[in-house]
Formats: sequence, structure tokens, C-alpha cells
Amino acid sequence: MNKIDNTTNVNESLHSFLASKEYTHIAILVDKNTLKHCYPLLKNLPEHDLMIIESGEDQKTISTCIDVWQGLTDNQFDRNGLMINLGGGVIGDLGGFCARTFKRGMDFINIPTTLLAQVDASIGGKLGVDFNGFKNHVGIFSEPDLVIIDTVFLKTLPKSELKSGFAEIIKHHLIADDKAWSKLLSTKWDAMNWPSLVKHSINIKKAVVKKDPNEKGLRKTLNFGHTLGHAIESHYLPSPSPLLHGEAIAIGMIGESYLSYKKMMITKEELDQITNYINSVYTKINIADSDLGVIMKNIRQDKKNKGNIILAALLNGIGTAVWDCQINDEDIAEALMYYNQT
Amino acid sequence: MNKIDNTTNVNESLHSFLASKEYTHIAILVDKNTLKHCYPLLKNLPEHDLMIIESGEDQKTISTCIDVWQGLTDNQFDRNGLMINLGGGVIGDLGGFCARTFKRGMDFINIPTTLLAQVDASIGGKLGVDFNGFKNHVGIFSEPDLVIIDTVFLKTLPKSELKSGFAEIIKHHLIADDKAWSKLLSTKWDAMNWPSLVKHSINIKKAVVKKDPNEKGLRKTLNFGHTLGHAIESHYLPSPSPLLHGEAIAIGMIGESYLSYKKMMITKEELDQITNYINSVYTKINIADSDLGVIMKNIRQDKKNKGNIILAALLNGIGTAVWDCQINDEDIAEALMYYNQT
Repeated sequence: MNKIDNTTNVNESLHSFLASKEYTHIAILVDKNTLKHCYPLLKNLPEHDLMIIESGEDQKTISTCIDVWQGLTDNQFDRNGLMINLGGGVIGDLGGFCARTFKRGMDFINIPTTLLAQVDASIGGKLGVDFNGFKNHVGIFSEPDLVIIDTVFLKTLPKSELKSGFAEIIKHHLIADDKAWSKLLSTKWDAMNWPSLVKHSINIKKAVVKKDPNEKGLRKTLNFGHTLGHAIESHYLPSPSPLLHGEAIAIGMIGESYLSYKKMMITKEELDQITNYINSVYTKINIADSDLGVIMKNIRQDKKNKGNIILAALLNGIGTAVWDCQINDEDIAEALMYYNQT
Repeated sequence: MNKIDNTTNVNESLHSFLASKEYTHIAILVDKNTLKHCYPLLKNLPEHDLMIIESGEDQKTISTCIDVWQGLTDNQFDRNGLMINLGGGVIGDLGGFCARTFKRGMDFINIPTTLLAQVDASIGGKLGVDFNGFKNHVGIFSEPDLVIIDTVFLKTLPKSELKSGFAEIIKHHLIADDKAWSKLLSTKWDAMNWPSLVKHSINIKKAVVKKDPNEKGLRKTLNFGHTLGHAIESHYLPSPSPLLHGEAIAIGMIGESYLSYKKMMITKEELDQITNYINSVYTKINIADSDLGVIMKNIRQDKKNKGNIILAALLNGIGTAVWDCQINDEDIAEALMYYNQT
């Protein structure tokens, strides 16, 4: 399990970590957004090379890794170097993968700057990139040497990004904490206590990952909403206005809640409650019948599948989830139809 | 530490391993050479996808990885698939890297078919590819799920390939077994007992890797000959007739033995003995003065360096080696000049 400095002061944490180490080179990886909005928040930095990539999920490719490896090579990094990833999930996942594969591995720190990365991507050591449209298709499991969570960065986010990360917070409530879920239902958006929500979500994910780091069982519950959600996200990725990750997961959670209801693991009232809440936060879209085939094909490439069997994590009452639930093409079509009709 | 079926029957080992597992898909990765000479030696194979790449060190690139990842995707592999790497170091290192990074990791078996891969690449879990001419610049540490060593494959090798692998056998003797070294000196090439030499070499490497899997200390002794050797190999890689790995390491071992002598860790007699033996096995080349600058530059990218300090493993008497010996540009120039004059 990695060390997480949870909702702390980023500069204090970083300086204290660096004081205990002797690195030969330090790189800070940013995208054009975090260069502008987050990098200026870091103070008294030691000498470093700034590595800048374009912003966006479509940069999460092997081609960008090649640029990063080249940059490390040009700056004569060795294994005793450090990479500091300052940004959202793309920066953390890609930067971590590049660091751990450069000369077979150097240290890296993640400083997640989006809500999504703070409550999700920064915990659990999933590193890597997309491949020909398939999400996180190439990567490894490896924990960062340090994760620094400072909610000061959330102030730099547009509301849509905040909502995108919020989908994972909803998920953590649904799979693990029914009491906090009830509280969430009655909290108005503007009254959200972000430091507390972030901490709560991180603790849920950390506890799950600690019990099952290699995703053999319990950790699969964190995939609730993601079997449908990832496939939907991949499908709209090449479109002019792709869905944000959390927007796709929100749809996935509605669809998979429907499947939990269909398999009699949650009640109609619970399904309605989840659907209404999620639809009150996110803008509805309509999934065209003609998109169904591609979404199905994407689901067939899901990392959680075993052979031809599609497996999903579903709710078993609010606050609990079960994994490796077998679902079929008909289930998927029905779940998407349900979402369209809500 | 990985399981190694040492000098065994490849078909028996493979069938016995597969009988204990349930894989959803099996891929066999070969190059055009091993497709022709080694693949026909495998009998009663289960259903599998044959993945074929071109032969040669210049294929050990991210670009080839992309082809392999694409092949696995096209054949709908999931994490419960198995990759069988049938070939030399390129196939094992690249295939292993692709397997361990595909959907964050599936199983793989190495069946090394060259002497070099049997006594070196197959042990110790170094996976990866070259990058812009730098050897093994991108990769990870991860042990194969099984390594099957069957010397039947050595019969398929040209003599130059056998000699290339033999350089690592020489190295293992020099760093760890002075008695066996004396015996080796008096053994004629045609009288070599390959199964016994392979087993002896594997046992030396296994013992070292077991004591220091992450190359923090002792394992660095396995880099004897490789600081100079890798840089020389990289330099001649784009030439019309590149050196084989072992041919470059042979030169590296002469150069680094000279440095061991210069630092008074071996005697002049020991240096002469090593130099004469290696030169009796390998064809001498002449390293032009004009090549020195590039070789130096390559050494500066060596994974073993720390910052600007060049570190090498040197002999401390025959049969023992020490690591992290600091060497400078002058030492390197002198060592290469010594080699040229022998």
C-alpha cells in the first residue's frame, strides 16, 4: 500500500518527502492545463526538468509515453531520478507507467489535481495508457512512492470536472456506505464538504485495495458502473464532444443498478432513488440504437471478462456490492434502454 | 524467484504445466527463425494463436510491442490468457514485457532457444525493449511464470550464436567460480558439455539473483563486461554487420579486466590469461579512434550509473567481482586502447 498524505498541504508534504531522499534528477510532468493552473501553486521547488504534454484523455497513449521516455533520455535521467506527476488521471497513470518502465523503474510521486484522480486514480497502483481506443489496455500495477492529496487544487477545476470526479464518490457510497449515501442524498451541491468527501472516499478505496490489491475478488466491486461505463466512454471518445469519465460512469451506474434490480438484488425504490439522484447531477444523453453494437463490442474487450463470459460488479442492496456477476448481451441492451427511458 | 525446469524435455515440461492451469487463450510468440527451427520441435500443442515477428535485435522495440498488443487484442485475449515465448532474448524480453503490460498483466512462459537466453536472459526477470538505440531502456522487472530450458534447441543454432551465449558462461565463471574457470581453459570447444555448462551457469545466476533480486548490490556483479560491452553493442547496432551481444560483451570483459588490473584487483598474469582465452574464442575487431566519442556517450546512458558517475562491476581476483567501481572517461579510453592492442 502506498503512502498517502491525505488532504494535506502540498508544499509541506513535498518538501518533507524530498528532504529524506537524494535524487539525481527530478522531472515534473504537467499538461497544459495543470501547467497554467496548478504548477504555480508549487513553491520553493528544487531544480527540475519540466515536461509538458497536451491535455486530455486522447493523449493517454504509447505515443505520448515515447515522448516522455525521450525527454527523460535527453535529460540523462537514471534510475535514481524522480518523476512528479502533477495533474489528473492521465498524467498520473501515464507518468507513473513511464517512470516505472524507464530503465526498468525509477521513483514517482502523484499529486492528483482533479477530484477524479484524488478519489480514484491515485489509489491502487493502476498505471498505463489507452490503446487503440481501449481504456487502460496497456499498463502495470505499481504503487506510487507517495501520493499527495491537497484539495486546494479542486478550486482550479471547472464544474464539469468536479462532477466527473463526483461519480466515483457516488460509487464509493453505493458499494460501501449506505448511511453516508442517505446523507449525500440530502446534501445540496453547493453545500458539499469536499475535504471530508475526498477523505471518506479515499478511505473506502484504500480499505478495499488493501484487502485485495491484485483484484482477485473484493477489489472488483470498485468496478461497479464501469463495465457499461467504460464501454460507453470508449464509444464516445472519438466524437467531437466526448463524455468525461465520470459522466460515462454515471450512466454505467444507472444501467448496472437496473441490472442489480433485474437480478433482484436491490428494490425498485432503491433503483429509482439511485437513478433520480444521478440524473439530478448529470445531463441526460440519449444512446442511439445504432450505437449499441459498438458498445457491446467494447464490453467484450473489458479486462474483467473471462473468455467469452462478461462479468460485472453489481449492487447487493445499497452499501454492498458483489462481483463476477455474469451478464449477457440482452441484459446490456435492456440496461441501456432503461437508461434512455429515465 | 521463478520456477525453472532446468535442462529438461520441453514437451513434458510444457504439458505438465498446462495440465495444471486453465487458460482462456494461448499465444505462442516466435520469430521467423524459431518458427522454422524450434516451433516444429513442440509436440501436441493445445489450441493457440501463433504470433510471428521478424528476427533480430533491431525488432526489440516499442513498435513491435504495439504489433503484439494489437495481435492479443484482435484475438480477444484477456488477463487469463497465456503467452509462450519461444526464442532468444528478444522474444523472451519483449514477449514477457507485452504479456505483463497487456491489460496490466497476463501469464507468460519463456522457452529460451539460444544459449544466451538459456544462461542469461531467462533468469532474473528483466523484461523490456530497446529505445532509440539504447539497450533495454524501457522495461520492468517481473519473473516468468515458468522457464523451460531444453538444450535440444542449441542444435538449431549457428556457431556464432553459440559463441555469443558462451560469453555469459565465461562471465559467470570469472565472477563466481575460479575452479571451473581453470577447467574451462583446458577444455577444447568441440568437447564442451553443453547441458552441464548451461546448468552450472544458470545455478550461478540464480544464486546471485536470489540474494539480490532488485539489483541493489551483489546482482550488479552480473554486469561485469557489460558497461563497455553494451555501449559497444549499441554503437555497432545500426552498422551493416552489427556485433552479436556476446561478441560485444567479450570485448567488454577484456576491457573491464584491464580496468580490474589497472586498479590492482587482478594480476598481469590473470589479465593475460583472460585476454588470450577470450581472443582465442572470438574474432578480433578494431575499434576506431573516431568511434570512441559515441561509445562514451552510450556509457553515460548506462542504467547502472548514478548521476554523472559511471559505475562498473570489476573482477577482484578470478572468481570474485565487486560492484559500483567508479570509472572515468580516461579509464574507458585506456581500456579500449588495451583491447585494440591485444
